[in-house]
Order: sequence, then structure tokens, then C-alpha cells
Amino acid sequence: MIPLPAPMALALDAAAAAATDGEVPVGAVVMRGAEVVAVAGNAPRRLRDPTAHAEMLAIRAAAAALGAERLETCDLWVTLEPCAMCAGAIAHARLRRLYYAAADLKGGAVEHGPRLFGQPTCHHRPEVYAGIGEREAAEMLRRFFAERR
Amino acid sequence: MIPLPAPMALALDAAAAAATDGEVPVGAVVMRGAEVVAVAGNAPRRLRDPTAHAEMLAIRAAAAALGAERLETCDLWVTLEPCAMCAGAIAHARLRRLYYAAADLKGGAVEHGPRLFGQPTCHHRPEVYAGIGEREAAEMLRRFFAERR
Repeated sequence: MIPLPAPMALALDAAAAAATDGEVPVGAVVMRGAEVVAVAGNAPRRLRDPTAHAEMLAIRAAAAALGAERLETCDLWVTLEPCAMCAGAIAHARLRRLYYAAADLKGGAVEHGPRLFGQPTCHHRPEVYAGIGEREAAEMLRRFFAERR
Repeated sequence: MIPLPAPMALALDAAAAAATDGEVPVGAVVMRGAEVVAVAGNAPRRLRDPTAHAEMLAIRAAAAALGAERLETCDLWVTLEPCAMCAGAIAHARLRRLYYAAADLKGGAVEHGPRLFGQPTCHHRPEVYAGIGEREAAEMLRRFFAERR
């Protein structure tokens, strides 16, 4: 089996840690070249913050770490297709590339629903790479929801 | 002249304060009935946080104040049509009503662009009331950008 790229493996670890906290298992990592700038797991319940998706927390932590409002030289790795809120934040942060693992047919806003980066009014489009780590990420989500039924 | 509803007047004050800080003048207020739960101005530059739009800061502050991830009994008042990020956060927070002043033809995602609440995959649609305080909010934005040209 081909090992996953290190940033996606890290994002999956953050997703697994979120599941342990009772959160929907999604993890995100911001990279600048080979440097890990920020890692975060989904935490809306724990933080009592409806905006605390993994991507949002990772983007905010990366901007704080770099002291910059924009992350033009950074890439985001996330285990699930971003929702509209997170895709909007990715555009505001001017992230260069987006790598995501599993597709989200219900909540995804990149290749499903509003397909935000394809909207004529979208002011920044990252390069998008989907499917890396899809099996692992989707299986983690399936297991999480199966255990809660 | 008919005075503006108090929450929109508060949101306009927060927008004016943001402009004084050199931020694009947008302000937001979360109300629960007649109670002001949170007030925030746009602050991405000051906070070095690309997600720090007025709506996001107000929603996060309201959730923290109420100790709840969801704001079903609350309404959001904002001086500018929310972008995709903020409209997504409004849906995640389950806000009951959205009142906004000026339309945003370029960045707006409620009645322009992706029209998020009209998407079939949107899981929560607030009631939307547009135009209250539009003249004041739009004039403040026009003045801000004119002074920077």
C-alpha cells in the first residue's frame, strides 16, 4: 500500500482525535512548503462555536502563527470536502492549494452544492486536489456515525 | 425621517468604529428578542485573521455568551449582505432571522453569487430581510473606499 502524504496523515490523526472528543471526525493541516504551520480537529461542540470546523481553526491558527491575514504561500489539507463557510474562508485566506480526502455530497461546497470556487463572483480559486486519503477519511466518518445510531 | 431599528443602528455604529481602525466598515449584532447578545465590527486586518468578518465575530461571541453551539432563538443584524463564509456560519448557527442593510453585488452570497440559502443542500434557511439601513451602510462603505483611492 502506498503511504499517504504526511500532511494528510496528520490531518487524519487530528480527525481521529476529534472523534475521541465526540466531534464529527474531520481534521485539517496548513502547510508552507514542507513546514507544518497549523493542525486542527473539528471542535464545534467542545468549543461551543458553530464556526469551529477543522479548516477554520487551522486557517485562524496559521494566520496567527504567521502574523498575516493572507496565506498565499500555504496549502490546506483536510479530510473532508469543505462546506460553504470553510470554502469561503479558504478564498479569503488566499490559500494556494486545497487537498481534501472524502467528498461530502450533502454539505460539500467545492465539487457539490454551490461549487463556490466555480462561481463567477469568487475572488480567489485555489488549485483543488480531491481523493487523497478518501478511503481512510470516509471509513472514519462511517464508523463515527454508525456508533451513534 | 423614520429612525432605524435599534439593532441596525448598533450595527452601523460598529461599522463606523471598524472604519476608524482602517477596516472595511461592516458591523453585526446578534439579538435574542430585545436583548443584545453580541456586537462586532469587521476586523481581519487588526486581528490578522482572514475569517474575522463582523458576522463571524458576532456569532462566535454570541455562542460563547450563551454557552451554546446553536443560536436558534437569535437574529443577526448586519450592515452588508453576508459573503459565502458568513452565510455558511449563519446556517451552522441556525440563526432564526437575518437582517442586512446594503446589498453586496460582488461578494454577497445571499441574494447574489451562490445564493446559499436557496441551494438544495442548504440545511438551514433563516428568514431574510434586506434593505433596512441600506442608505447609511452603503454611504459609509462608499466614503471609506473613496478616501482610500
